[in-house]
Amino acid sequence: MPDKTAFAVIGGDLRQAYLAGLLAKDGFDVRAAGFDRDAELPDTVTKVSSAREAVGGASCIVLPLPYTLDGATVNAPFSRAPVPLEDVWTNAGKNSLVTGGRLSQSVYDKADEYGFRAADYYKREELTVLNAIPTAEGAVQIAMEELPVTIHGSRMLEAGFGRIAKMHCRDLSALGADVICCARKYSDLAWIKAYGCRPAAFASLPGELPGCAAVFNTVPALVFDEKTLSRLDRGCLLIDLASKPGGVDLEAAGRLGVRAIWALSLPGKVAPMTSGAIIRDTILNMIDG
Amino acid sequence: MPDKTAFAVIGGDLRQAYLAGLLAKDGFDVRAAGFDRDAELPDTVTKVSSAREAVGGASCIVLPLPYTLDGATVNAPFSRAPVPLEDVWTNAGKNSLVTGGRLSQSVYDKADEYGFRAADYYKREELTVLNAIPTAEGAVQIAMEELPVTIHGSRMLEAGFGRIAKMHCRDLSALGADVICCARKYSDLAWIKAYGCRPAAFASLPGELPGCAAVFNTVPALVFDEKTLSRLDRGCLLIDLASKPGGVDLEAAGRLGVRAIWALSLPGKVAPMTSGAIIRDTILNMIDG
Amino acid sequence: MPDKTAFAVIGGDLRQAYLAGLLAKDGFDVRAAGFDRDAELPDTVTKVSSAREAVGGASCIVLPLPYTLDGATVNAPFSRAPVPLEDVWTNAGKNSLVTGGRLSQSVYDKADEYGFRAADYYKREELTVLNAIPTAEGAVQIAMEELPVTIHGSRMLEAGFGRIAKMHCRDLSALGADVICCARKYSDLAWIKAYGCRPAAFASLPGELPGCAAVFNTVPALVFDEKTLSRLDRGCLLIDLASKPGGVDLEAAGRLGVRAIWALSLPGKVAPMTSGAIIRDTILNMIDG
Amino acid sequence: MPDKTAFAVIGGDLRQAYLAGLLAKDGFDVRAAGFDRDAELPDTVTKVSSAREAVGGASCIVLPLPYTLDGATVNAPFSRAPVPLEDVWTNAGKNSLVTGGRLSQSVYDKADEYGFRAADYYKREELTVLNAIPTAEGAVQIAMEELPVTIHGSRMLEAGFGRIAKMHCRDLSALGADVICCARKYSDLAWIKAYGCRPAAFASLPGELPGCAAVFNTVPALVFDEKTLSRLDRGCLLIDLASKPGGVDLEAAGRLGVRAIWALSLPGKVAPMTSGAIIRDTILNMIDG
Repeated sequence: MPDKTAFAVIGGDLRQAYLAGLLAKDGFDVRAAGFDRDAELPDTVTKVSSAREAVGGASCIVLPLPYTLDGATVNAPFSRAPVPLEDVWTNAGKNSLVTGGRLSQSVYDKADEYGFRAADYYKREELTVLNAIPTAEGAVQIAMEELPVTIHGSRMLEAGFGRIAKMHCRDLSALGADVICCARKYSDLAWIKAYGCRPAAFASLPGELPGCAAVFNTVPALVFDEKTLSRLDRGCLLIDLASKPGGVDLEAAGRLGVRAIWALSLPGKVAPMTSGAIIRDTILNMIDG
Repeated sequence: MPDKTAFAVIGGDLRQAYLAGLLAKDGFDVRAAGFDRDAELPDTVTKVSSAREAVGGASCIVLPLPYTLDGATVNAPFSRAPVPLEDVWTNAGKNSLVTGGRLSQSVYDKADEYGFRAADYYKREELTVLNAIPTAEGAVQIAMEELPVTIHGSRMLEAGFGRIAKMHCRDLSALGADVICCARKYSDLAWIKAYGCRPAAFASLPGELPGCAAVFNTVPALVFDEKTLSRLDRGCLLIDLASKPGGVDLEAAGRLGVRAIWALSLPGKVAPMTSGAIIRDTILNMIDG
Repeated sequence: MPDKTAFAVIGGDLRQAYLAGLLAKDGFDVRAAGFDRDAELPDTVTKVSSAREAVGGASCIVLPLPYTLDGATVNAPFSRAPVPLEDVWTNAGKNSLVTGGRLSQSVYDKADEYGFRAADYYKREELTVLNAIPTAEGAVQIAMEELPVTIHGSRMLEAGFGRIAKMHCRDLSALGADVICCARKYSDLAWIKAYGCRPAAFASLPGELPGCAAVFNTVPALVFDEKTLSRLDRGCLLIDLASKPGGVDLEAAGRLGVRAIWALSLPGKVAPMTSGAIIRDTILNMIDG
Repeated sequence: MPDKTAFAVIGGDLRQAYLAGLLAKDGFDVRAAGFDRDAELPDTVTKVSSAREAVGGASCIVLPLPYTLDGATVNAPFSRAPVPLEDVWTNAGKNSLVTGGRLSQSVYDKADEYGFRAADYYKREELTVLNAIPTAEGAVQIAMEELPVTIHGSRMLEAGFGRIAKMHCRDLSALGADVICCARKYSDLAWIKAYGCRPAAFASLPGELPGCAAVFNTVPALVFDEKTLSRLDRGCLLIDLASKPGGVDLEAAGRLGVRAIWALSLPGKVAPMTSGAIIRDTILNMIDG
């Protein structure tokens, strides 16, 4: 990594504020713009008043996740004034790295036009893996808050065995739950067994629901339709961790009186400092190689 | 256990409501009094309008934890009308068992006077052990709610190694925290090591505080005085799980800007159904032998 | 699965003997050939004297792992007389399934010629995953046997993070070891951290070796060359779990006085009954879907 | 601890040899006698040829566990010549500490007579706790060696819930076994549940035996009599970890064809270096306070 890397952190929520502080703690020169309100930026970060001022001379420009909500300005909830994306593009140095989350094609086009490099940290596999940690903890927290029983000693079912489910099954088991995990692939069922949970084929999911205190979905497809929902015990909590379109027919859940919670974007909500650290680590990996 | 055991559940909060339902589910005849509001008593429990009606003919009369707040009436937050303790004493059958939490000497005196047996389930070791499970989970929940970081990967310190600390250290470790536990006795330090946490002598506690994201006290004596509190990192969360008088100088904590939370009576708050099940199990043990 | 599935189990070691017994316990009709010596076949398995007799009428013919050592006869260490492969091919019924481990192309050719179906259970992902369980336990057993220290409290390093390493790191951590795992990919390093071990980049492996009581290699490439071997503490145990060509320069290890053990084919050696059950499960998956 | 503590290590097996080396590594002046054969004493330990030479001037004299087998000489299996206890007593300095394992009353009498202090490290609770770690691992090792199945996925029963059982249940669970633990006290059954195993009352032990791959006894009283032994599955392994008189009718086990192993004194056998470290830690605690 170049010794002299200077970072510009532009906009974002608490995650980006923490990220700026962590980079400064690592010894980098960090300038931040778009943090007028609330956010606690430590004194080690140089707070500047415009994106232009922050970006100029920076080796790496860090945009938030997602980098924009409107296509024209940086997603900067802590900024009083809008921060135009154009101010970033036009001030980014030649060969500087502009990185953000969920970058659209237009950013790569701007990179070609202005001569900077663009990269999406949200596409990095290590970030997705590490984000499963706060997501899983967030789902545990919601279950603790909502259930009248402890996780310990309760039967819980997880639908799917992707990254989030892997971490979440681990957390639930570790806390003493009796965890059933449903997956389609034989190799996933083998892993579920290897990791000490009880595997069940997807076809047998409805039959496994009675007796469960909580059920967690991680599959972004309609797993919990009305018929399946009707198999849940009264009082069973259903938490959907799947990204859009989700896996629960929420309307049917309402009709049936099923307590269903669609928990999206947990990392930034339940652990903004950890989320900031994950983005920081990922960006340093990107710079490193 | 006598086949014909009939239970009277008199007063209490959600825990006792769940307890009544669980006993009914076990096949016992259960009558409940003191639940006019809120509480969800299942249909399998016979709801009666007075303690007298519930108590008459019952082999076992279950009072809440604590059984009274004023010395004259049953602790019955869900009851519109006060439930006089005297109604229980005078209607309890000869040799019936009256059990409750934190019974005072006067209850044993009444037992002698009226010919029933009195026993305090809160004095049973198995209840205290099992209550450590919801207490520990409650402490995890608070830490998850209050901290901007995940439990996973955070350094946490536990003061004391009694029942609650044993469970809580286990939960924190299981979730991936780096757990230091301070104890006085060499044998406790040996157990801490055996269970996979890092042991530290009490004398070295202040030196272990820097770097901790959260600190938990379980010792009911002033461990966290002003000098010790001043060693905590800014932003470190301090949760006191010790019963009165607690182990934290809360006034000094306020002065120093330390976020300190005194979390008492967690089982009934965070997991009333599990707490009811624990009381139920304990009472059945008492009857059994 | 067809109700009437009849199995023929031909040759193999203890694993196949257990497998035959497990299939019989599942209620299938099982005939076994090639088990004259040692092997304990339960009475529920019909022992026949020739492959021809076993194979005729069977829906599924199970060959060992590997199915042959010489290309002409079934790998049948418990059989006094050689069992010609040709006896299997010529007697296998039309559309019957012939399955074995490490089938060569010639088996598929025979399948086309004689009209049976051929499938290699050793190529199934779930078998490879499940085999990681006995392999990891076998590696723990060897470490326990060879080391003068407990796993608990010892520092151990794992090179690689494939299936075997995942299970083995889990076992070592669970027993209380301080586990460092070296991997190349950032996403693997993220998983190592998520699963509670300490990740280290491959480049820093040599520097992590001092202080380790045991080191385990799972990478089938020369990781432990003379220079790297020279970094091991005196008395450090090196166990190579990688398939050929292995990852340790054994000659250099000998010169340097490093205790190095190349532990191959552990499942059949340390847990033949579990290995038989894994093959059984895999074959039933193959028939099922 | 006094800076100038000099240690004399007299006799013993590998544990004491390692202990001497560890004390030297801690920076203490260590003289050792009674190690002529086999034992690897590092160069940092001063090897002397007589107890007299080692003991003179030492602040702390360390005898083995047990300190003697015949009442007249030090238990010194690595010494060619006998090492008379009298040589220790008469040369121990005033106020020096003589410590050993299982000291008889006569040692305390000699202490009074000659003016040294005597203390038995084997009576220290922390040593007993820490010794449960190698004992539990040793029991795991034996089970791995003897069973044709993996610990993972096997049902195992533990009788008793003392120190060894606590550690051993933890190890078995951690490796993925389905662990049932039988205890008498309700509070122990509560702990078993809290720690994630399945509790069973002692009275129901015989009924829990079928289906177990291995059974471990830790109760030093006849738990496994002929009738109970007859409930074990064929092939079930029975390991008795209880000190004399043990808990298994070995004669009946032989008659019934039950594989029973009485595993005594595991720490010194399976992990002599860890055992030496445990004795070292305990002695330092004794000196410290």
